[in-house]
Amino acid sequence: MNARAPRSDALKVGRRGTRDGRVRAVIDRVIPEVDCGQFAVKRVVGDRMTVEADVFGDGHDALACMLGYRHEFDRDWSEVPMTLLVNDRWRGEFTLERMGRYRYTVTAWVDHFLSWRTEFRRRIDAADIASAALVGGKLIAEAANRATRSDAQRLRDWGKQLVSAVGTDEIRRIALDDEMSLVAQRYPDRRYAAVYEKELKIVVDRSRARFSSWYEFFPRSTSQEPGRHGTFRDAETRLDYVAELGFDVVYLPPIHPIGRTKRKGRNNTLDPTQDDVGSPWAIGAEEGGHKSIHPELGTADDFRRFVARARELGLEVALDIAFQSAPDHPYVRLNPSWFTWRPDGTVQYAENPPKKYQDIYPFNFESDDWTALWDELKSVFDYWIAQGVAIFRVDNPHTKPFAFWEWVISEIKAAHPEVIFLSEAFTRPKIMHRLAKIGFTQSYTYFAWRNTKAELIEYFDELAHGTGREYFRPNVWPNTPDILTEYLQRGGRPAFTARLLLAATLASNYGIYGPAFELCESTPREPGSEEYLHSEKYELRTWDLDHAVSLRYLIARVNAVRRENPALQDDSTLAFSATDNDQLIAYVKATRDRSNVLLIVVNLDPNHRQSGWVEVDLEQLELSPDVPFDVHDLLTDARYQWRARRNYVELTAGMGHIFAVHIPALSPTRASAR
Amino acid sequence: MNARAPRSDALKVGRRGTRDGRVRAVIDRVIPEVDCGQFAVKRVVGDRMTVEADVFGDGHDALACMLGYRHEFDRDWSEVPMTLLVNDRWRGEFTLERMGRYRYTVTAWVDHFLSWRTEFRRRIDAADIASAALVGGKLIAEAANRATRSDAQRLRDWGKQLVSAVGTDEIRRIALDDEMSLVAQRYPDRRYAAVYEKELKIVVDRSRARFSSWYEFFPRSTSQEPGRHGTFRDAETRLDYVAELGFDVVYLPPIHPIGRTKRKGRNNTLDPTQDDVGSPWAIGAEEGGHKSIHPELGTADDFRRFVARARELGLEVALDIAFQSAPDHPYVRLNPSWFTWRPDGTVQYAENPPKKYQDIYPFNFESDDWTALWDELKSVFDYWIAQGVAIFRVDNPHTKPFAFWEWVISEIKAAHPEVIFLSEAFTRPKIMHRLAKIGFTQSYTYFAWRNTKAELIEYFDELAHGTGREYFRPNVWPNTPDILTEYLQRGGRPAFTARLLLAATLASNYGIYGPAFELCESTPREPGSEEYLHSEKYELRTWDLDHAVSLRYLIARVNAVRRENPALQDDSTLAFSATDNDQLIAYVKATRDRSNVLLIVVNLDPNHRQSGWVEVDLEQLELSPDVPFDVHDLLTDARYQWRARRNYVELTAGMGHIFAVHIPALSPTRASAR
Repeated sequence: MNARAPRSDALKVGRRGTRDGRVRAVIDRVIPEVDCGQFAVKRVVGDRMTVEADVFGDGHDALACMLGYRHEFDRDWSEVPMTLLVNDRWRGEFTLERMGRYRYTVTAWVDHFLSWRTEFRRRIDAADIASAALVGGKLIAEAANRATRSDAQRLRDWGKQLVSAVGTDEIRRIALDDEMSLVAQRYPDRRYAAVYEKELKIVVDRSRARFSSWYEFFPRSTSQEPGRHGTFRDAETRLDYVAELGFDVVYLPPIHPIGRTKRKGRNNTLDPTQDDVGSPWAIGAEEGGHKSIHPELGTADDFRRFVARARELGLEVALDIAFQSAPDHPYVRLNPSWFTWRPDGTVQYAENPPKKYQDIYPFNFESDDWTALWDELKSVFDYWIAQGVAIFRVDNPHTKPFAFWEWVISEIKAAHPEVIFLSEAFTRPKIMHRLAKIGFTQSYTYFAWRNTKAELIEYFDELAHGTGREYFRPNVWPNTPDILTEYLQRGGRPAFTARLLLAATLASNYGIYGPAFELCESTPREPGSEEYLHSEKYELRTWDLDHAVSLRYLIARVNAVRRENPALQDDSTLAFSATDNDQLIAYVKATRDRSNVLLIVVNLDPNHRQSGWVEVDLEQLELSPDVPFDVHDLLTDARYQWRARRNYVELTAGMGHIFAVHIPALSPTRASAR
Repeated sequence: MNARAPRSDALKVGRRGTRDGRVRAVIDRVIPEVDCGQFAVKRVVGDRMTVEADVFGDGHDALACMLGYRHEFDRDWSEVPMTLLVNDRWRGEFTLERMGRYRYTVTAWVDHFLSWRTEFRRRIDAADIASAALVGGKLIAEAANRATRSDAQRLRDWGKQLVSAVGTDEIRRIALDDEMSLVAQRYPDRRYAAVYEKELKIVVDRSRARFSSWYEFFPRSTSQEPGRHGTFRDAETRLDYVAELGFDVVYLPPIHPIGRTKRKGRNNTLDPTQDDVGSPWAIGAEEGGHKSIHPELGTADDFRRFVARARELGLEVALDIAFQSAPDHPYVRLNPSWFTWRPDGTVQYAENPPKKYQDIYPFNFESDDWTALWDELKSVFDYWIAQGVAIFRVDNPHTKPFAFWEWVISEIKAAHPEVIFLSEAFTRPKIMHRLAKIGFTQSYTYFAWRNTKAELIEYFDELAHGTGREYFRPNVWPNTPDILTEYLQRGGRPAFTARLLLAATLASNYGIYGPAFELCESTPREPGSEEYLHSEKYELRTWDLDHAVSLRYLIARVNAVRRENPALQDDSTLAFSATDNDQLIAYVKATRDRSNVLLIVVNLDPNHRQSGWVEVDLEQLELSPDVPFDVHDLLTDARYQWRARRNYVELTAGMGHIFAVHIPALSPTRASAR
């Protein structure tokens, strides 16, 4: 058979010729480790990085074990000692001081000085002790040879005292001198140290990678004059509104020239009129492509002004990067080899038979000219980074090769570690995970389609505690321009409040597509469709931001609560609480030190008031069953006194509580634990 | 800091320069895989090897996926196709025809012909179909260029027909020709195939590695004349007895010359008399070392005769390999650098302060001359293999470096794949697992100290289904010359029957140390000790094999049942059944095809008769709740008719049932499933 021989050779661990046979320590099962170290774990600046490993040797000798780490720009490795927990498990930690990539690994060795000292303590027989003193003297002399000048002399003196000491008590006193022992331990014999096979990787992002609140809007729909194409100047005024709502990321659909050939009309029709504006995702026209700005939105200067104004308001602009071309994109003319040409001389458009997307040409990543294509696509990111953009929402990354993303994200982040990439892949779970592993900073999720209590608990438990926890950062959206769920279509305003509260408190990264969301826009193009009727993807819209239905004040309050409560800025502590009503979902998020503890309860029923009993995990919160505690609703400012495990809640349709739980300073349980 | 830079470089998957960017398939999470492929999974000859992997690509293209494998002596790789199960999970399998080491890996590629065919089926539009016919014609022509002569012509004809066909029906009929499609699929375009990063390893042993019944005895205690040192000639007569008991492996403690310096007396005393025989584990004297035979046992010829006689009886001889030396071992004189010399000019004996083992010198594996030491120790195995021995029970492997074992086992098995190594390490779990991973064929377990129902269930569930299932083959012993447990000391004969039944049915590999076991020897050296009084380790014993207490007939019956029932020859199907009595443990073992189903029930109480209800997992056994089924006790030949889930059992102290469950040929449940 003509199977290709795989590339890799056997790991020849322990074979002679590849390792010194005197290396006796073994390092195994290091965590965290993603896919055997193939991919990085994700952290943010300031995090403590905790690493554990199984470390052991043959026989009864004592081991020493170090955790080594290095920022990519450091020349040398740093080290911290690891300590034995139990059952051959060791742990060490260090602080991630800088953005960028780190490496870490574990080193361990059989430590003869430590072994000698440990055994010496247990020796009883006088002749045995005298003999052991000589052994110790030799080990100390060897340590002295490895030591720096002043320590060397102290060790040499100690060793001489030890070998010349007389009498069991005297020998024991000198041998077990704690201070000298610490000095000796600074100079271990590491000739036969084992080093873990792999250097494991960490990507350290800025804190916004873990905690961000996104607002998506179409700048072309920001003109106050119905029918007039909005510009960046118009959109600037919208920024004040977004800032008032408390978001920190403003995400714009593609801002490039829109193709004319095969342009789609309103509601995705195939017969556009002359004044139809087309889909922003049909990128490229004679005015330019992915590095150009749609003339009707304004100029490059206008865009830079917009970015600057956003920054003044504490907002960061995120751009949509969709690597595909409209038929009139300059790429098609200038780089025909980047597309798939059919035998009939036409370019292959996007399709999923029998569906056709004739306004979109996908790139052919199997092009012989793939390196030039990769370089060009990377330059698109570089261009917008130079314009002040550091967050990219990447459209459909799962329809481009994984190897391309791994390369381009790695290259970009090497030069710009602050850049955040959000993966917009609503596809099969393993593909979404792969994209996160190969570098995407954040990922869209299935949140929009998880509506029942059971679905939400299962999904968010998996997100917070499943295998993806080291690399998959969820960014949850109740709606997008492509997704108007049945729950939102049918539930009215309470459906929107419930989904807002869930998104903003279940996930530290969340976003909404507005103003459709806060104005509770809920009409689908047709029954059974998740597309909006009169979708902004195909036409200009004018929005009445002051409409009475608007959720703007609730959203502003929720975003303020998120900013003020660090418990909502990290997903890892999420723990669900039982309730006796399937329409009431409850969960706790807390900082690790418990200085900020929130209990959230949401009524998932958009139609009815619901009440029930919430079980508080008293042990988790270090609460006493006998001492009352206060819960403070951060949405309404109401305060309740709760007591014991089960407490009553009652909520109107789609509403929720975000309770700050005030744990009494000296509850009996806590006091007794001291 | 002076951290050593770790060796390995980053995996640069997906970086340009190391891989072609046109490789679009991804292969992930291959199972089985032990520690990222660092270690082999274990199988026996004839096994079907099943491999699964996550395989996917970007976009919607169809993938093809192959499982490649190669025996170490094959030049070329073989391949079998893998098939998609669900959710990007693929599976393939092949048969392991030969002993030795295999490699396997997974290859996958985006298959444009398959994609074209899949999409073609969904096309509706006539122009679309005509255009797709041209694309197909091109793909078929390319396949023709890769095809062998006759297929090439057929494909070329097919391609021409397709591109020249007229009319949608005609095109569709030609395009979707099944037979031609199969021909085309034989010649895929694998230029951009992805190959899994790792070649994973399998060690294929002979079937005795998975199913074996061991009997340990001291040949020096086989003389019929009290006080006379037994010889191999005496031991030959014992072989008939062992064969009658139904064992297949006869394991002998070390048979080498025993040291005289610091020799231990009876009951491990320090003041031996002139006629004390010493411990066989104090290896080496002026008569020789690890390749010599203790003169009192006989000659090399006697040993070979003994091995040959065993073979005639269907028994295989296993030797004990203990890599340590008595002070008068020739190694100490000839190779002083292999030992640790203390500053006072003496050799470091084995110790665990304050305990001392002055009759034993451990090797110094950190010797500068370690390569010569490794070679010499390997030559010990080679020597005994040349004498016809292919099973070694290795004494305390955890006190010698893991790297040494990995090397020596790998070297030996490369030349002698039939060799079986049993690891005698009663130590911490991670160390025992490591020894199994690095090559030991079988491993001793904690079975001797797992006595209650809860302990047994937890431990054997872990052994059968835990992480070790791919590499850790338990060999369970109710007793050894070092282990006389409290349960056996206190429980009398019923304790021995219970432990025999458990060992022989919970584990496909088991052994006893006899005749102490079958004669229910139960007196410890002192209260609280697990050592035997008058242990054979330090003195000669004479045994009355025909004593009325003997379990020999029960043991013979149990071993016959094991031989006749393949369900007892593999541990992987073990499933515990509930009972309503904590003294009754019940479990099912079955062949995968359910042609042999056993239900075992053991009364763990050595003092009282116990009765209770056993829950039969009807679904697992495909039994109907309404149709009675027969259970046949293979120990007593009694037959019972059972019905439904709960059935009554009653057992005398320490006794058990080994029921063959007769599943009615056409129970309604089974019939309805057809």
